Amino acid sequence: MAGGNIPITAAWYFFLFTLVGACCGLLVTVFQGDGEPLVASLGFSGIAFAATYCLICWLGDEFKRVGLKGRDVSKIDKRELPETMGAVCAVIYLMVMIVFIPFPFYEYFVSSTSGGGNRDVTVEMVETGRMLHRFPHNKLGEYLSALLSLQSMAILGVADDLFDIRWRHKLFLPAIAAIPMLVMYYIDFGVTNIVVPLPLQAYLGQLLNLSWGYYVYMAAIAIFCPNSINILAGINGLEVAQSIVIAVFIIINDLLYITVKGHPATDSHLFSLYFLLPFLGVSVALWIHNKYPSKVFVGDTYCYFAGMTFAVVGILGHFSKTLLLLFIPQIFNFLYSAPQLFHLVPCPRHRLPHFNARTGLMEPSRGSFMRPPKWYISLALKMLEKLGLVKLWCDDRGNILEFSNLTLINLYLVRMGPRREDKVTWGLVGIQVACAALGLFVRHKAALLLFPYDNLRLQDFEGLGLMMG
Amino acid sequence: MAGGNIPITAAWYFFLFTLVGACCGLLVTVFQGDGEPLVASLGFSGIAFAATYCLICWLGDEFKRVGLKGRDVSKIDKRELPETMGAVCAVIYLMVMIVFIPFPFYEYFVSSTSGGGNRDVTVEMVETGRMLHRFPHNKLGEYLSALLSLQSMAILGVADDLFDIRWRHKLFLPAIAAIPMLVMYYIDFGVTNIVVPLPLQAYLGQLLNLSWGYYVYMAAIAIFCPNSINILAGINGLEVAQSIVIAVFIIINDLLYITVKGHPATDSHLFSLYFLLPFLGVSVALWIHNKYPSKVFVGDTYCYFAGMTFAVVGILGHFSKTLLLLFIPQIFNFLYSAPQLFHLVPCPRHRLPHFNARTGLMEPSRGSFMRPPKWYISLALKMLEKLGLVKLWCDDRGNILEFSNLTLINLYLVRMGPRREDKVTWGLVGIQVACAALGLFVRHKAALLLFPYDNLRLQDFEGLGLMMG
Repeated sequence: MAGGNIPITAAWYFFLFTLVGACCGLLVTVFQGDGEPLVASLGFSGIAFAATYCLICWLGDEFKRVGLKGRDVSKIDKRELPETMGAVCAVIYLMVMIVFIPFPFYEYFVSSTSGGGNRDVTVEMVETGRMLHRFPHNKLGEYLSALLSLQSMAILGVADDLFDIRWRHKLFLPAIAAIPMLVMYYIDFGVTNIVVPLPLQAYLGQLLNLSWGYYVYMAAIAIFCPNSINILAGINGLEVAQSIVIAVFIIINDLLYITVKGHPATDSHLFSLYFLLPFLGVSVALWIHNKYPSKVFVGDTYCYFAGMTFAVVGILGHFSKTLLLLFIPQIFNFLYSAPQLFHLVPCPRHRLPHFNARTGLMEPSRGSFMRPPKWYISLALKMLEKLGLVKLWCDDRGNILEFSNLTLINLYLVRMGPRREDKVTWGLVGIQVACAALGLFVRHKAALLLFPYDNLRLQDFEGLGLMMG
Repeated sequence: MAGGNIPITAAWYFFLFTLVGACCGLLVTVFQGDGEPLVASLGFSGIAFAATYCLICWLGDEFKRVGLKGRDVSKIDKRELPETMGAVCAVIYLMVMIVFIPFPFYEYFVSSTSGGGNRDVTVEMVETGRMLHRFPHNKLGEYLSALLSLQSMAILGVADDLFDIRWRHKLFLPAIAAIPMLVMYYIDFGVTNIVVPLPLQAYLGQLLNLSWGYYVYMAAIAIFCPNSINILAGINGLEVAQSIVIAVFIIINDLLYITVKGHPATDSHLFSLYFLLPFLGVSVALWIHNKYPSKVFVGDTYCYFAGMTFAVVGILGHFSKTLLLLFIPQIFNFLYSAPQLFHLVPCPRHRLPHFNARTGLMEPSRGSFMRPPKWYISLALKMLEKLGLVKLWCDDRGNILEFSNLTLINLYLVRMGPRREDKVTWGLVGIQVACAALGLFVRHKAALLLFPYDNLRLQDFEGLGLMMG
């Protein structure tokens, strides 16, 4: 078993040392002067990348030794790889996020007091010297509660990888992990109003108070994001690549707001950037090891952790509806999978595409009917086939015997024909990019059809004083 | 392996259901009215007790299946028991602490704003309607960062139990886990002054600013508390029992402050109570399963988690010196172990007392000299023997061949003779109680010899406005 660790080449060492050196330089500059915390966040992201890259290389054998391992069934040699490397990402991410705290928060507080002593009674001085890129105190509460949620998610993810928690139980692990964030929202912010779309305003008014329903909505977001990434998974690199795409598009969206000077949502989107830049750092490092041909697996831990990161920034940044626009392939995959997940049609234990060892290509895997399906199931499947959304295998009399499993990956193979594993991943990543770009476009160009104003136009905010997601 | 879970008797079910019912009743009362958060904390502690009790019973087989198990070498049948049950305690504790957040914090904020909306700008209204048992906003930051530290410690503890991290590395795990707390201290409180003892005031002044040295001191506390519990361990029930004793005495100390009306340190000691009552809940449940004869082991996870809980309340509650007075047996054990830990004398892999299968009693285990020791080592050991602090086995010419291992447990057996395992635990618990009682007495009665005032006397604070640990 020894020697299974991934070697780090001299070129990589050189690159990583240079990167870490440059990042440390950035941090020192920011720390000494009055630099932007965003620059510090970039520095930390680089360090997080380097640390994740190395630790994944070094820890492979250790992970395998304690049983965190799995076989890559889509390769000829079905080699055994270390699993749950998402835990390495999560730990480094959390450490970086903790050490980062003083950068956005410290000078804010120092500038607000006369130095030392009990700052409790000097809070009212804060508002005077406020700088927009520094955070107020209640943001610190949100930040810490978000970290608690992410850390809880990482713990539950590792527990899942270790104990193989049952499918119907693990669906709700993210809801447990979201509790710190929801509690913080409850005590600190507590706004449960939503802006009603224009066509419905005649009936519901301009604002609708969802009360506890809003908490159900937030919990649903927290449950959906991690699980939807976890079910669009199973081929080399896909989990990490889709997460990277989503993160990049949220970052683009954040930058759209931040570049509007004095925008009231600047703080929320800075908050989002602080969370996503280091996430990108650890994810890219993981992706390098996880891309085809994989040297490590990411485990449920990574899917949960990534999804929860998105849920956290979406909820605490008040742009959860925008967030869902970046999850279009995941939403489609979930709806498309629903007939199998809810057992309307048979669902085999694994729905991974089938690896054809002779051609080296991936093919759609199949679900089989033990007995002929009911007439309406048959009808629905045949209609789907007409739409090109499923492939069916029938007997002479037209009874359906088998169907391609209802996942986006299999659908891609049905439409595009057998492909090599990496081509499938790239194809799906392309779909993710296209959907996300379309989503953001719709959000900022077409939203005015449904809502009376767009976030990016500052003048819409005057006198309104609230943010819309 | 199946059926190895611990059965829960009908009487226990009845008791636990009644307890949970009563606790839920308490919570509802507090939530509806304007009750004390302390009452809610008691309710949560009861629920935490019940949850921990049941989960430990139910999860034994699962833990053994994934390799979290160990043999009880001090029993005749050397049976295999599930290990790392401290992780169950930690998870339930953290969940309870998170759900508890609204009780001390929510009404404080609600009463300070007109309800809903952006509370950021209304912070200055807070001071007017302040109730002492509600916490200010920066306390929330401390609370959350403390939870982050405890959660990090739990993660690192489980990693240690899983991967068997090397001794010299694991010593510093608590320092990593303490980072969230230290960062929070840095940005939010930042007071690094200490009160100079009277005899030294002529040289150093009344207050001494330790600057970064204070952070080193806090990190040292965070390293010492978990590790010192971890090395005073190895016989059934001892880890949990000593933690319970320490927690109870901190609680007694807290109550001494809280009963003084209007004491400026009330908030710090309430903070401590909120952390320790649920800790007591999960620990007592664990102790029931871990006491002689053990049905589960606690793992390093519990020792780290317990020690970190004490470090957190001591540091954030500003009574770290008082805390150390409750760790007298641990400090003695550490100093007494030092010659072996630093390899001045030979240190075998395990220093557990030896189980004599014939008598069923524990006897002191021995370290052996491969070659005759240097003259000064010999001299030192013989002096220790004169003081009754070690037992030596020599050859005819007086050369030391073997010595009883230098741990408090072995010393107890040297002094008291062979005992059954549970008697040893009770004896050491008795020592812990006696030392802690003495420590608290010294703290509140004799401290006036060293310091110009005592915390409990309110008038000493007037005009000083700071707290002493």
